[in-house]
Amino acid sequence: MTDSDKPGNQEGQAFCVAVDWGTSSFRLWVLAANGAVIGESRGLEGMAIAAASPGGFPDVLARHLAAAKAPADAHILIAGMAGARQGWREAPYITTPALLADVAAGSIAVDYEGRDVRILPGVAQTSNGAEDVMRGEETQLLGAGMQDGMVCIPGTHSKWVSLQDSTVTHFNTFMTGELFAVLGTHSILQHGVTPGAQIAPDGPAFLEAVREMQADGAALTAKLFSVRARGLVGDADGASGAARLSGLLIGAEIAAARPDGPVTLLASDGASELYAAALAAAGIQTKTLDAEMASQAGLLRAAHMIWS
Amino acid sequence: MTDSDKPGNQEGQAFCVAVDWGTSSFRLWVLAANGAVIGESRGLEGMAIAAASPGGFPDVLARHLAAAKAPADAHILIAGMAGARQGWREAPYITTPALLADVAAGSIAVDYEGRDVRILPGVAQTSNGAEDVMRGEETQLLGAGMQDGMVCIPGTHSKWVSLQDSTVTHFNTFMTGELFAVLGTHSILQHGVTPGAQIAPDGPAFLEAVREMQADGAALTAKLFSVRARGLVGDADGASGAARLSGLLIGAEIAAARPDGPVTLLASDGASELYAAALAAAGIQTKTLDAEMASQAGLLRAAHMIWS
Repeated sequence: MTDSDKPGNQEGQAFCVAVDWGTSSFRLWVLAANGAVIGESRGLEGMAIAAASPGGFPDVLARHLAAAKAPADAHILIAGMAGARQGWREAPYITTPALLADVAAGSIAVDYEGRDVRILPGVAQTSNGAEDVMRGEETQLLGAGMQDGMVCIPGTHSKWVSLQDSTVTHFNTFMTGELFAVLGTHSILQHGVTPGAQIAPDGPAFLEAVREMQADGAALTAKLFSVRARGLVGDADGASGAARLSGLLIGAEIAAARPDGPVTLLASDGASELYAAALAAAGIQTKTLDAEMASQAGLLRAAHMIWS
Repeated sequence: MTDSDKPGNQEGQAFCVAVDWGTSSFRLWVLAANGAVIGESRGLEGMAIAAASPGGFPDVLARHLAAAKAPADAHILIAGMAGARQGWREAPYITTPALLADVAAGSIAVDYEGRDVRILPGVAQTSNGAEDVMRGEETQLLGAGMQDGMVCIPGTHSKWVSLQDSTVTHFNTFMTGELFAVLGTHSILQHGVTPGAQIAPDGPAFLEAVREMQADGAALTAKLFSVRARGLVGDADGASGAARLSGLLIGAEIAAARPDGPVTLLASDGASELYAAALAAAGIQTKTLDAEMASQAGLLRAAHMIWS
């Protein structure tokens, strides 16, 4: 990311427009060749909203390009769900083992006002029983600049990724965030979980649940109902119910991922604190990198591979 | 259940009215002292509907008593969710270790037109991290007449129960049926699961998933997303997605319950075939008893303890 000795790289001159287009969020940056952010715009028009809106993906992009004052001739590079089958245009997956640099080579062009617009592919894993996909996280991994080790990217669909020689050798999606939301809203556990309750990373209900799952990783579905039953046979409240449910789910994730060394957390929000606390309780060292910075850096790096 | 030598026990003479009042179903039988069914009535006015209806629990009961032509003076015994805090009247739990015969002694009276109406208590387990409750299953266990061993009662909330000397020593609720419904309806897995798809107990997608969970009981949340991903990276359809999701959840239940001997299945519907097939795939012997017959027999047995 230190390309400041390349030509045409003066601070203030746009090198590319970088877009992280997720399922439910949109982030656009106008970047100089050295990564300096010249302009930016963000919104909630993720894939789902963009696909359903009258002008579709092109209109959403046009609005944010204008808001960020992007130059009319800047190349545009997009990562994330815009490349899904139900997105703007499908960017076929590259498959594991996947060299991160191959993400750039796998980009596809999309027709947009005669400009050079590319969408990066996701990564698929096709092995039987471990079928999995990612879109967007491969770009964060590229930006994080890691070559080896285990990475955890918490979220609605958390990803655990094993890297070796800058190659994704294996990865695994956990629906942890979605399970928490769905069980707390649509199942009987709603009677034991306060919606939106703040969960303290050092709270006893959270950490106790993490440790229970560390002691018996197979016990998740055996323990879920206790989130409700504690309120019936004891005096547990909805806040501790939320903490327990979160601890059981994150604990199950760690127990199944079985990291055998330090873990790099790629995270932006409060989730990073919960995961760091849970991993510490499981005796695992972590370091945290900012996920949004990694997205930006990954898009810049891929843009240099394509256009420099 | 052979009380035919007791007085007043001629075939055709009502000894009691037995009611299994669940969350979403209602079943009433007029029983002779020897268990012969003299009349019956059933409906969908489970606890949730009864509590919300204008006449409440008494009106629902009155309608079904009339439909079954129950004698006006017959004793009435009720098991299930009618005794929950949000039911007709709370019948406080008895706690583990719980002698099944104590269920009858724990019945509470409810005021209904001056008649002798009792509601049976449920069973609670208060040990830390394994808090759990049942209402209705304790009556089925009493009716099944088992003294020792492991019982599995599949359902929306499956119960696994360890019995010793006719005493519930430990039990565990698995939200298997509810997880299947909620994940297939409200999560991203809905794109990989056909609602209402028939699941063959001997189908490869179901049995493969059961075996995967048998091999690694901690892997449930690591594998759930594959139900969706298979459709993206392969050619899996929604019917095989439903079978895989069911196999993963039932497999996780068996892996966590860790039966160390034969299992008695107390089941009424198609679930019994899926569970029997899954347990067989895990190398566990089963025998199946009809859950509805067990409810009826348990209510009769408790009625004899109270009124004979």
